[in-house]
Amino acid sequence: MKLYVAERSGNAHKARLFLSILGVEYEAVDVAYLSLQGPEFRVKNPRGQIPVLEVDGRHIWDSQAILVYLARRYGGEDWLPTDPDGMAEVMQWLALSENELLLGIAQARIGTTFAAGNEDVILVPLDRAKRYAARGLRVMVERLAAHDWLALDRPTIAEMACFTYAALTHEAGIDIAPYGAVARWLERVRSLPGFVAMPGMEAVPA
Amino acid sequence: MKLYVAERSGNAHKARLFLSILGVEYEAVDVAYLSLQGPEFRVKNPRGQIPVLEVDGRHIWDSQAILVYLARRYGGEDWLPTDPDGMAEVMQWLALSENELLLGIAQARIGTTFAAGNEDVILVPLDRAKRYAARGLRVMVERLAAHDWLALDRPTIAEMACFTYAALTHEAGIDIAPYGAVARWLERVRSLPGFVAMPGMEAVPA
Repeated sequence: MKLYVAERSGNAHKARLFLSILGVEYEAVDVAYLSLQGPEFRVKNPRGQIPVLEVDGRHIWDSQAILVYLARRYGGEDWLPTDPDGMAEVMQWLALSENELLLGIAQARIGTTFAAGNEDVILVPLDRAKRYAARGLRVMVERLAAHDWLALDRPTIAEMACFTYAALTHEAGIDIAPYGAVARWLERVRSLPGFVAMPGMEAVPA
Repeated sequence: MKLYVAERSGNAHKARLFLSILGVEYEAVDVAYLSLQGPEFRVKNPRGQIPVLEVDGRHIWDSQAILVYLARRYGGEDWLPTDPDGMAEVMQWLALSENELLLGIAQARIGTTFAAGNEDVILVPLDRAKRYAARGLRVMVERLAAHDWLALDRPTIAEMACFTYAALTHEAGIDIAPYGAVARWLERVRSLPGFVAMPGMEAVPA
């Protein structure tokens, strides 16, 4: 099994984090961002993005699809239950991770840390990205104020989907302090056996 | 079962379309957009958005989570298989629907039809939304050029997630003509027993 990644890709980290927690062996293949839109990589992923998981010559693109694949293949009912209620609870947070967290925090991170002043490469202008991120973090606080985990009474792929960008708010110019319940949840995820960080996360204030 | 909707909401239509195809009875409750951020509705959905599905007093927010819930509850393995490969294939397209189609077509639709000239209410500026939409439609074409359906060899909730905004490109100022394989797939979805349109779709050129 191969995972196509880039060192500073938050979406790739979601997959790496879950593979590490599951204890699944894989080969990480670093891909240069500039090659993503080239014809060779586009065969693996028509969107020209990482991560891509290669299994027996098949390619699974999109971090959400990769998390679901790994959960179903290696996790039984633990990380993604298949009953209607349990699966819907998890899916709500996968949707939040692909909306508010990706278009909010991840876009603000690009606009702040990786492409400051270069509006052309970002989809969402910085001020709007920060407002959108705030909505996502507020929704997480409302859940986490009274629960340890996002979807169920145990960690699920909701955690794997939402952790990475919530742990990188400092690179997005967003202060996590007003979202205390999220900060405490970040520490719970960090305590899971097999947890791995990514570059940039070491700067998270304790 | 109640579904909170608004007449012109594409995300609400995804749920209505699938409920109709499944033949499931439900009560549609129209919600004024202005009330969505109020405290009463926020109890149903902390994001302050429609659709919300109410089942036995529980609320499922997010169209993706609602599609998954309905598929698992009423569809057996037909609309969302639970094997790792099949589920991952479907999830890829749910992700595309929440990314390129929602941030591309749906945002361009707001910027073109509902809030033209009012940049404050849109997340993605119009030119960028259109470029992002083009990527999503191109990825759909690559799949649909050689297959009848997006994820598997039959319709799944990938169709329910991706149809609505792909059928509303004219409201987003996007010409569907260059994406012929998508246009033909739209017709296949329209032929599914139980199909229902939403206002605006009647203007789709044949």
